[in-house]
Amino acid sequence: MQTSERLRSFIEVPQDHDFPIQNLPYGVFCRPDNRQFRPCVAIGDFLVDLSALEENGFLLPERRYFSSESLNAFMSAGQSAWRAVRARLQELLSVDCPDLRDNPDLRNAVLHEQKRIQMALPAHIGDYTDFYCSRNHAENVGTMFRGKENALMPNWLHLPVGYHGRASSILVSGTEFHRPFGQLQSDDAPPTQGPTRLLDFELEMGFFVGPGNELGDPVPISDAEEHIFGLVLVNDWSARDIQKWEYVPLGPFLGKSFATTISPWIVTLDALEPFRCDGPDQSPPPLPYLNGQIANTFDIELEVAIQGSSMDAPFTVCRSNFRNLYWSMSQQLAHHTVNGCNLRSGDLIASGTISGPDPSSYGSMLELSWRGTKPLTLTHGESRSFINDNDTVVVKGWAQGQGYRVGFGEASGKVLASV
Amino acid sequence: MQTSERLRSFIEVPQDHDFPIQNLPYGVFCRPDNRQFRPCVAIGDFLVDLSALEENGFLLPERRYFSSESLNAFMSAGQSAWRAVRARLQELLSVDCPDLRDNPDLRNAVLHEQKRIQMALPAHIGDYTDFYCSRNHAENVGTMFRGKENALMPNWLHLPVGYHGRASSILVSGTEFHRPFGQLQSDDAPPTQGPTRLLDFELEMGFFVGPGNELGDPVPISDAEEHIFGLVLVNDWSARDIQKWEYVPLGPFLGKSFATTISPWIVTLDALEPFRCDGPDQSPPPLPYLNGQIANTFDIELEVAIQGSSMDAPFTVCRSNFRNLYWSMSQQLAHHTVNGCNLRSGDLIASGTISGPDPSSYGSMLELSWRGTKPLTLTHGESRSFINDNDTVVVKGWAQGQGYRVGFGEASGKVLASV
Repeated sequence: MQTSERLRSFIEVPQDHDFPIQNLPYGVFCRPDNRQFRPCVAIGDFLVDLSALEENGFLLPERRYFSSESLNAFMSAGQSAWRAVRARLQELLSVDCPDLRDNPDLRNAVLHEQKRIQMALPAHIGDYTDFYCSRNHAENVGTMFRGKENALMPNWLHLPVGYHGRASSILVSGTEFHRPFGQLQSDDAPPTQGPTRLLDFELEMGFFVGPGNELGDPVPISDAEEHIFGLVLVNDWSARDIQKWEYVPLGPFLGKSFATTISPWIVTLDALEPFRCDGPDQSPPPLPYLNGQIANTFDIELEVAIQGSSMDAPFTVCRSNFRNLYWSMSQQLAHHTVNGCNLRSGDLIASGTISGPDPSSYGSMLELSWRGTKPLTLTHGESRSFINDNDTVVVKGWAQGQGYRVGFGEASGKVLASV
Repeated sequence: MQTSERLRSFIEVPQDHDFPIQNLPYGVFCRPDNRQFRPCVAIGDFLVDLSALEENGFLLPERRYFSSESLNAFMSAGQSAWRAVRARLQELLSVDCPDLRDNPDLRNAVLHEQKRIQMALPAHIGDYTDFYCSRNHAENVGTMFRGKENALMPNWLHLPVGYHGRASSILVSGTEFHRPFGQLQSDDAPPTQGPTRLLDFELEMGFFVGPGNELGDPVPISDAEEHIFGLVLVNDWSARDIQKWEYVPLGPFLGKSFATTISPWIVTLDALEPFRCDGPDQSPPPLPYLNGQIANTFDIELEVAIQGSSMDAPFTVCRSNFRNLYWSMSQQLAHHTVNGCNLRSGDLIASGTISGPDPSSYGSMLELSWRGTKPLTLTHGESRSFINDNDTVVVKGWAQGQGYRVGFGEASGKVLASV
């Protein structure tokens, strides 16, 4: 097989494009002609309809992974199937292979311009879990609410703290939603009802579960990556005032469950492999069930931009990196299942806000504006402490290679006024 | 239509049986001949195969609610469909109707003895939410951990506190599971890993969501009951030591996600209507969006029994009542959607532990043994502070009418040793 750097497709892909042949992220698109949802991969400005490719016998012989409306079946097929399909797709799309390149009928049947189609959620998400894996984020929030001395809770350095999220309100990039309404309370006054005043984004990434595990059968940390199909960008929208009043003692609920935006393209671990790097030193050392390999994370650059209704372009408000996380995906997965909890193919597991050490890398308005005390200046005299009505928030991410990048596209969402 | 008291079926049902013609709870059974899952209702010791009844043209003309492997489609059909099917089933099963009574072929095709079949989960559960609606339970737990003065958190009397639960590990009654393993910590020592030492049950009830709502379109409290398909018994198994160490600040996670047991039969609101009663006085008065009708709850008797491996019968450890809840189902549903969160047909929403004012009505071992300080004496010299390996915990519930009862069957689960 060729090295990543030397692979080239007959479909032209500029060097700074998110979707070269080295990437091939998976998604689900909606065919404009028949409104059917079908699995696909992205290459440059195009996508490849995998169900059509499979039906025409150009994928793997005697295998059917892509005949349903989601990627769940393929996710459950496991690493060897993922690698076989990836290898075949890289072959088919390479500049040297005539099968698709020189077959106009097949090209017509399977290649579509992304700009002409609509993307859908890539999987049926059975359960959604959100972790809290950035030490900088936990320390920032802890410092704001409990002071610097008590910033980290006693459990934080011993386990990846997480909670169950709401699966029904996970939205694919581009979906608008309304500012949430709820109970607000301040200054010991009785609570009132109204739209949130403190709407925030949270810069996160998430991974989709591959085969998963049976109830009562934990996944050891050494096997965890076999259960990670791939990653997406996540914006875990948060209503800080609703959350603050409701969350004791059972955690975030309506402050989160109104919307969670994800990018439509799932970038696989195999595409990210060239960008693998060491995670942070962990002290105290984790308990045995959380003790895995050191090179457990990936160098993925992340940024968030805001575009208000009067702005003509998004303004970047933070830049961070996936490797800023303290707890790795493998540790999250081993922890999640250590009690016997079963993960199912298509479950989404998010990282929590990915803040870095530098203030410009903080992954939420809560931290960037330090609870609203330091409003951010955008362009054209616009400033923000939190998110306004009609603001669009765009999360982007990519891993930078030599002469190519493996990108995630974007997770974009626009906030409409409260109903 | 006849009154509930005067309805009688040609299938003999004793007066103290859970499933008379007044009840007709819905479930999903697995046909032993073809391992297919099919919707059904219970009557006495029998069940009626609804897909077979429908295929044979004996249900509603030109309607297909029961051709899939779950009740989700019927749940989404709404109150008028539920009432039409219930009326038709009560007609078909009544002592005066010859259609099924005198048709041996049809009886053979649709009636099965419950003891010969296996029940499955009644619905595909997209999201599972667990509330915390018993004031007595919240005060008991609060008193144990924070003292009597600070027993209730400041938000508790203003909103039904709840959190997202884990849908994948919801088990139908009769399913065994292993004692969960996890991180345990006490006395400021570093945490260790091991099986939970404090396994507990929680006596709860839950309701299945009917039609549900679109994202951004809250359900007003006046319409909430139209979205409640029916109720089940719930045992929200809890590992108190795992929960205590992990739950700050994001709430319960692995202390709950290893297993939640529900009863297989869903009792509809129409079956429970004769047992409707007033909820408790609420002071302070709830905010407008939570302010609904007073007669918002149901008189349902509940009990929990434990059977250890050396005991020859279950021993009842608590007796409570659904009407002990402070927050009603309608209030839970209105609150859940007030931020725009979408509920989908088949979502399960549980009440939280249903403790009453009397110590014998406490709905968990944590409360019954007061944190282990007062072990309960069972039969044959057995005692329990929490749940042992090989214990079976059985939750039962019923509403008592004049000469009949509307029962829930049971939610039973056995704990095996840790793996």
